Amino acid sequence: MTKNFNFHINAIDGRARTGVVQTPKGDIRTPAFMPVGTAATVKAMLPENVRATGADILLGNTYHLMLRPGAERVHNLGGLHKFMNWDRPILTDSGGYQVMSLTDLRKLTEEGVKFRSHVDGSEHNLTPEYSMEIQRLLGSDIVMCFDECTPYPATESEARKSMDLSMRWADRSRNAFGDRPGYALFGIQQGSTFKDMREESANKLIELGFDGYAVGGLAVGEGQEMMFEVLEYAPEQLPSDKPRYLMGVGKPDDIVGAVQRGIDMFDCVLPSRSGRNGQAWTRMGSVNMRNARHRDDSRPLDENCTCPCCANYSRAYLHHVHKAGEIISSMLLTWHNLHYYQELMQGLRDAIAAGTLDAFVTEFHAARAVGDIEPL
Amino acid sequence: MTKNFNFHINAIDGRARTGVVQTPKGDIRTPAFMPVGTAATVKAMLPENVRATGADILLGNTYHLMLRPGAERVHNLGGLHKFMNWDRPILTDSGGYQVMSLTDLRKLTEEGVKFRSHVDGSEHNLTPEYSMEIQRLLGSDIVMCFDECTPYPATESEARKSMDLSMRWADRSRNAFGDRPGYALFGIQQGSTFKDMREESANKLIELGFDGYAVGGLAVGEGQEMMFEVLEYAPEQLPSDKPRYLMGVGKPDDIVGAVQRGIDMFDCVLPSRSGRNGQAWTRMGSVNMRNARHRDDSRPLDENCTCPCCANYSRAYLHHVHKAGEIISSMLLTWHNLHYYQELMQGLRDAIAAGTLDAFVTEFHAARAVGDIEPL
Repeated sequence: MTKNFNFHINAIDGRARTGVVQTPKGDIRTPAFMPVGTAATVKAMLPENVRATGADILLGNTYHLMLRPGAERVHNLGGLHKFMNWDRPILTDSGGYQVMSLTDLRKLTEEGVKFRSHVDGSEHNLTPEYSMEIQRLLGSDIVMCFDECTPYPATESEARKSMDLSMRWADRSRNAFGDRPGYALFGIQQGSTFKDMREESANKLIELGFDGYAVGGLAVGEGQEMMFEVLEYAPEQLPSDKPRYLMGVGKPDDIVGAVQRGIDMFDCVLPSRSGRNGQAWTRMGSVNMRNARHRDDSRPLDENCTCPCCANYSRAYLHHVHKAGEIISSMLLTWHNLHYYQELMQGLRDAIAAGTLDAFVTEFHAARAVGDIEPL
Repeated sequence: MTKNFNFHINAIDGRARTGVVQTPKGDIRTPAFMPVGTAATVKAMLPENVRATGADILLGNTYHLMLRPGAERVHNLGGLHKFMNWDRPILTDSGGYQVMSLTDLRKLTEEGVKFRSHVDGSEHNLTPEYSMEIQRLLGSDIVMCFDECTPYPATESEARKSMDLSMRWADRSRNAFGDRPGYALFGIQQGSTFKDMREESANKLIELGFDGYAVGGLAVGEGQEMMFEVLEYAPEQLPSDKPRYLMGVGKPDDIVGAVQRGIDMFDCVLPSRSGRNGQAWTRMGSVNMRNARHRDDSRPLDENCTCPCCANYSRAYLHHVHKAGEIISSMLLTWHNLHYYQELMQGLRDAIAAGTLDAFVTEFHAARAVGDIEPL
């Protein structure tokens, strides 16, 4: 199949859009939430069940996969899709974000980032060219440019230095990626919280030409208010006919606000990580299953939810298995959380298509204002 | 439904039998392997997937459940079946084995066993009467008598003292259980490795009258040779028209040998526990997925196995996710191991029905003699 990579917008409501990213491995309905499958698994889930929640695409982490099991090895085994039993689209990050967070183990130069593996201490040199090669070996459908995620807060001169470096790396990523029909390369806008610098970054990326554009450097501690402030202008600086991806976001209300501001794609470990920690996300907000108030509660987590966790188990059971450290706790709560996230995305898509996004958002916040159901 | 508890033998081959234990919650095909769901979950499995492997019945642990979440609580929540989303038969042990193993935390008297909880240090007094009450509150379909599992090795006088106590407790268990149509009470034969004492124990139990009989006090360190020596006579001392249950057994070859010697029911944590430890059980024996020889192996664990683990994943993937400490490793290997165990039981049932058990056993041992597939 040589079908190419495309983005079709089906409807617009305010600044929000709904559409489809077409790839040879399947369509991605937008706004889309991508569950994170760091080390070739969405933790505590079988891939067919991730799909059943409504996920069209997964995210894989270049940093983790290059170290273990190794990109070359995954390639020789038939690629990441076959390796992890997921035949739909996969987006991989560039590894830049993770290596940068190894504060004491890495050295940043114009060339790239030298770092030591957290797995075995071995030395590696991640560059834009090498990142493109790794993502190609993995078989990623959507490849991300190698960039530096500007830390927050940053002074204007720090932000400029970082953005300029990322743009030079974007150029090198673009060249190294070359022309690969059916595969996409996304650029990443930087510029911290400076509107003009974001504009400049966007223009540089547009000049290079990408299949999609990420808003980078957010969700790094700036808080929702500041993030939304940047999202008032950053997405619209990027091409309207290409998918816009907000990396590493986020909580349900972050996603809703970002969709309202023109974002099409999201990824976040939150639903899976909080599931393992006993935290559930529902229409009513977040619910801590560790809390003793659930101990005798025969009601499901959310009686309106159709996921297997809510259909088959009581809050009392979820409380018990979490307290007992049972794996099924992670399995059920991750499943529920991913289901809730995908249901939220479907709600957003439907509302945009119907031109009723404002009402949807009002209702979303109203349900959360009421909060979780009363203890028995 | 008031259907009663029954056992029908459909075919006999040598000393081996195949049949069906009928209960109001469904049939149990024998010889049967019961996966262990200690704390109201078969670890790392959803119950519908345990069922899909072919399990007709699960085992729950009275000791664990009485401490957390508590039998009273489970009862108020609708019973163990509803609590853990398993609507087929459940057998519970009496708690005796686990409290006895709390060597430093328990005190044994004629009355029962006083012990401290490993969860919160609280003090409990488990007696035959209380064990019956807990198992009733849980809603167990097959209730086990409260007994002392005689340690191995035991002198003749130690074994007698222990067996006599267990028989007095069997009497009290029988009285406390009373008459509960649709529910079964199993007696447990003791007597260590002494044939006459086993006979005496069996006769005492038969006198009291039970719906099924367990061979107790085996799989406690005596080794397969000694276990089989006892199984040469112990099962036949028990009524031939009632199910015979060998508690806590075992490895595949233990099960095969015990079926040949007239055992109908088994339970063991081995397939699930070894799955979590990266050990797989196949026709060829056991395979350690931690071994680096699997690192680049694109072949499934067992190419003749139809479980989701073998259908969808390579040895390389299983090696990777186990090394990376991913939950999916426990999920996939537990699933495979339970599938393998149930397939073995089906093979045994079919062979007994066809009168070809000897050939089946010869083939079973031949495949294991060849061992695991050659490394790539």
